[in-house]
Amino acid sequence: MREFGIGLLGLGTVGSGVLKGLQENGEVLAERLGAKLVVRKIADIDLSKAKNLNIDPAIMTTDAYSVINDPKIDIIVELIGGMGPAKEFILKSLKLKKPVITANKALLANNGSEIFETACANNTDICFGASVGGGIPIIRVLREGLIANKVESMYGIVNGTCNYILTKMGQDGMTFEAALKEAQAKGYAETNPSFDIDGIDSQHKTTLLSSLAFGLYFPVKDVSVSGIRDVTERDMRFASELGYTIKLLAVIKSGKEVEARVHPTLIPKTSPLAAVNGVFNAIMVNGDMTGRSIYYGRGAGQMPTAATVLADVCEVVRNIMAKSPLRMKPIPGAHNDLKIKPVESIETRYYLRLSLMDRPNVMATVTSIFGKHGISLASVLQKELKAGKYVTVLIITHTAKEKNIQTALEEINSLDVVGSKSVMFRIEDI
Amino acid sequence: MREFGIGLLGLGTVGSGVLKGLQENGEVLAERLGAKLVVRKIADIDLSKAKNLNIDPAIMTTDAYSVINDPKIDIIVELIGGMGPAKEFILKSLKLKKPVITANKALLANNGSEIFETACANNTDICFGASVGGGIPIIRVLREGLIANKVESMYGIVNGTCNYILTKMGQDGMTFEAALKEAQAKGYAETNPSFDIDGIDSQHKTTLLSSLAFGLYFPVKDVSVSGIRDVTERDMRFASELGYTIKLLAVIKSGKEVEARVHPTLIPKTSPLAAVNGVFNAIMVNGDMTGRSIYYGRGAGQMPTAATVLADVCEVVRNIMAKSPLRMKPIPGAHNDLKIKPVESIETRYYLRLSLMDRPNVMATVTSIFGKHGISLASVLQKELKAGKYVTVLIITHTAKEKNIQTALEEINSLDVVGSKSVMFRIEDI
Repeated sequence: MREFGIGLLGLGTVGSGVLKGLQENGEVLAERLGAKLVVRKIADIDLSKAKNLNIDPAIMTTDAYSVINDPKIDIIVELIGGMGPAKEFILKSLKLKKPVITANKALLANNGSEIFETACANNTDICFGASVGGGIPIIRVLREGLIANKVESMYGIVNGTCNYILTKMGQDGMTFEAALKEAQAKGYAETNPSFDIDGIDSQHKTTLLSSLAFGLYFPVKDVSVSGIRDVTERDMRFASELGYTIKLLAVIKSGKEVEARVHPTLIPKTSPLAAVNGVFNAIMVNGDMTGRSIYYGRGAGQMPTAATVLADVCEVVRNIMAKSPLRMKPIPGAHNDLKIKPVESIETRYYLRLSLMDRPNVMATVTSIFGKHGISLASVLQKELKAGKYVTVLIITHTAKEKNIQTALEEINSLDVVGSKSVMFRIEDI
Repeated sequence: MREFGIGLLGLGTVGSGVLKGLQENGEVLAERLGAKLVVRKIADIDLSKAKNLNIDPAIMTTDAYSVINDPKIDIIVELIGGMGPAKEFILKSLKLKKPVITANKALLANNGSEIFETACANNTDICFGASVGGGIPIIRVLREGLIANKVESMYGIVNGTCNYILTKMGQDGMTFEAALKEAQAKGYAETNPSFDIDGIDSQHKTTLLSSLAFGLYFPVKDVSVSGIRDVTERDMRFASELGYTIKLLAVIKSGKEVEARVHPTLIPKTSPLAAVNGVFNAIMVNGDMTGRSIYYGRGAGQMPTAATVLADVCEVVRNIMAKSPLRMKPIPGAHNDLKIKPVESIETRYYLRLSLMDRPNVMATVTSIFGKHGISLASVLQKELKAGKYVTVLIITHTAKEKNIQTALEEINSLDVVGSKSVMFRIEDI
């Protein structure tokens, strides 16, 4: 049976998951694939990891290039992450016509264009199945399973950390801070959680998802993002009373200008995505032929992510065996000059939470501002009188232009009858 | 751009969906694929369909072999269905080394062994993505996305007709007969609904799913099946009171002997599959690496199914362009001599509905029979006194051996204090 040499860059959680997966399922994989996968070299800055993981120290090195350049290495698996040296390692591998598997969404979202072009120019595969959705094969589904569809829209819960925090806030009434602390204690959130809770990780994934959906490579900066720091447990409760839950959602919509954005979003409690709780992820795809389909599973974690990395290794091995490298372009299509619509230009429904002085005529003043900007209100709900002089007013709008909402809120925020700053979340009726 | 000639056998619902899909999305597909797909010939017994569908009558024929043998036809799409001539058409095509795409689960479940062997012997692809799950790319997910996993279990709602009927019974309290009638009126059920409601269609799909899960070809007769005719609206209500809903479920479990069966099943209302309603399908896969993942979408219908057929066409075209036919075997693996456990040997929990005379000592007699057979009861609930002398008794057992349950029920049914025959449904705590 033919053997394929794998060079592993980065022996962190997922990297050691790949080793473990090959140990446990290597035989089954060989039978399914008709080829044997062997990790022949591992590069990591910390050589002491070899001991804990029971790895022959002879195959460990701190020099990634000695792995990449080794003629016995057929395939490079990059699991270092981050922008740093990973990019150079990947480019070097591709130039040597060695296929690369990576889960590095940050790098691909920021430098995908260069990396994908290098792959194509060298007729070499770059697979990134584990960069979105962890164990959920959503990248493969978009590239192959749904290929006959024009994607009309996609909605994704793609960050398990945020979903865990929001789930805890919604189900147990925890504050954001308490839920974050719990997530950190359980290892679901980093000590510096900004990357997750400010939506950056989701932004990277949304960039990749929208690129695959529409067949061209979008710049990450065009994907607007807001994280979950502004969501309070009161908003979760109010949303629930109105029939909604709040999720950090990747929203992608087709159109003359497409939409691709990440923000806390009210979705109906009856939506299938509302039931996606804890660290689980799910991506809903609405295609013109297939209609709605949903892909649910573990969006992160050692073994789920490693399983997707290994599926990519199999893909690449099949291509090598068939002598058909780059059987599919990294982003199939690239057939148009679509752009992402600025978020100011979108139209949707809104949840607004205002803090208003409990005085005659205040409500009339506020509602007239909305009216002036063409914003029609679906419901207005005055909540409890807080200690002091301010009442909380919840507003759900009909479909309105974001620009108008922003202008109206600015105007309202400048009134002297307004207490704390108004809060705005978008609604998607999915 | 290279063109590929498709020969379409069968111009029914899905066949005309394939034509429609190519009309609407042919350009996008060509860009994604780097090749153009052209339906060059269509065989159907009814030539008049050409007119209604605006098809050039010159490409229509009643002679399928004239399509198969045409040197301008590169790929055969078989959408006739059924066992009849479809098998001979497929075998002939494969022997001519023309790749075949089919959605014919009945044929594959019954004759897959011969068909898959012929494909392998002729180094030619047979793709059957649309045979399970309609628009849900579950076949592709199992063959590729989850390939690194050992499948531990799978649970599938794979028949939209049954799921529609059970949903109506559960949500609206309709009788089975009324729900079936409504399904027929909406075109979700055939005039002769036996194929769906007796579970045959699900049995075929379960055969294919379990073959893919475990990498060998199981005989369809080893997959035990019971349909939904015995589910009453009372059972739906009782199940709901106990915290369950009833679904026709494909149940697949790994083991020294594997399990593969189809039957009405109580699942907790909190299960993600409990929320799969109407004609939608969903398949839950529990893999040793990926953990739980779920695939949800339209399990039937013209365009969803056509989309999956076209995805298979793309797969085959890529293999032709790369000169790598049979890049993957139809059933990857075939590495063992696993067998399906007879249903009598399974162990699970059970829901039992007994009709017992309202007389002293009856309950003691019945429960002692369960005790004698080593069946431990988790809950016993006496329901309303029906007109007359019988009361309904609901029992949920702890895990028990099916053989013991069957023996105990036979014994109970022979008691003269029993009214109508006892009803038994299996429970899966998913």
